[in-house]
Amino acid sequence: MHHLLWKNKESTLVADCRVFSVYRNLALSPNKSDVRDFYVLKLSNWANVIPITPDGDVVFVKQYRHGTSQVTLEIPGGIVDLEDLDTKETARRELFEETGYKSEELIFLGRHNPNPALQDNLCDTYLALNAKQIASPSFDKEGYEQIELFLVPIASVSQLIANGDIAHGVVITAFYYLGLYENKISGTLSP
Amino acid sequence: MHHLLWKNKESTLVADCRVFSVYRNLALSPNKSDVRDFYVLKLSNWANVIPITPDGDVVFVKQYRHGTSQVTLEIPGGIVDLEDLDTKETARRELFEETGYKSEELIFLGRHNPNPALQDNLCDTYLALNAKQIASPSFDKEGYEQIELFLVPIASVSQLIANGDIAHGVVITAFYYLGLYENKISGTLSP
Repeated sequence: MHHLLWKNKESTLVADCRVFSVYRNLALSPNKSDVRDFYVLKLSNWANVIPITPDGDVVFVKQYRHGTSQVTLEIPGGIVDLEDLDTKETARRELFEETGYKSEELIFLGRHNPNPALQDNLCDTYLALNAKQIASPSFDKEGYEQIELFLVPIASVSQLIANGDIAHGVVITAFYYLGLYENKISGTLSP
Repeated sequence: MHHLLWKNKESTLVADCRVFSVYRNLALSPNKSDVRDFYVLKLSNWANVIPITPDGDVVFVKQYRHGTSQVTLEIPGGIVDLEDLDTKETARRELFEETGYKSEELIFLGRHNPNPALQDNLCDTYLALNAKQIASPSFDKEGYEQIELFLVPIASVSQLIANGDIAHGVVITAFYYLGLYENKISGTLSP
């Protein structure tokens, strides 16, 4: 697919926005006849986790999101710190901080790019089996995160997505991966 | 959920980046004790479409994405123009422009927010049944889009997602909605 590849010649920082940075790239077209500019976002990688309790409930978090100015229903997740490049440890940490739940059975479900047109980052999704609450949520020290827990039987999640109650693309993608995993362990997905 | 709602007091344009704009918002916390700044992105809405041929193949597009600097496997889709606020018409137009395919059976599958933490926009997904190629792809006039078509039997799509060959979150979300639709028409999703 080399004939589709652009070659980036130059990147200029346009704005440093704390959780993301905006760059203007000058890129050479595949036929090498043309240089054009494209705005892209650099972000840290993300990790998220579908925590399932011994009773078969998924532990969701409700939180306000400043992008859409709405309260969303999401699974726990967050940014992979630079010093902490392991997405599994990030998933474990975010699960505990946002919900107070712990699991000894974290299983990798899938890796995706939330928005490859504009963003360079990836998101790794994990499944946390037998998740049990052993503490209160701790949130971030600066108080940016105000979160409520919301438990949903695993069988009801698809209905919440169908209703639009769960509308976060990264979360819906996580449940697609969970479906693949369920198919695999029941042997219907070819190896 | 009013107790989780922040109230935006002020929005300042930080950077106009053509397909998105960056704003710095000053928002009042739910307990009204604190004003903090958040960077958010304003984007037009998106529409995408899963085109299925009479033979049961999904029509994918391969294209270079400047966010990840990689060639991705995606379904057709694009930005809803300001003058053209109907996502269904956008899906129909992008299907035709990117692939040359037409369908008389466009079915709404679902609406999601690609990234509510940072972005304000939504994406509507459609299914295009009996899609038939009646022209060559036309692409955009400025030559930004260089696209190759790639047909995949519908039954093989989940394997491409499991492999990571399809890794675009917005595309995986579309196939989650397709699964819901398949369950609904076979009667397994409760009304």
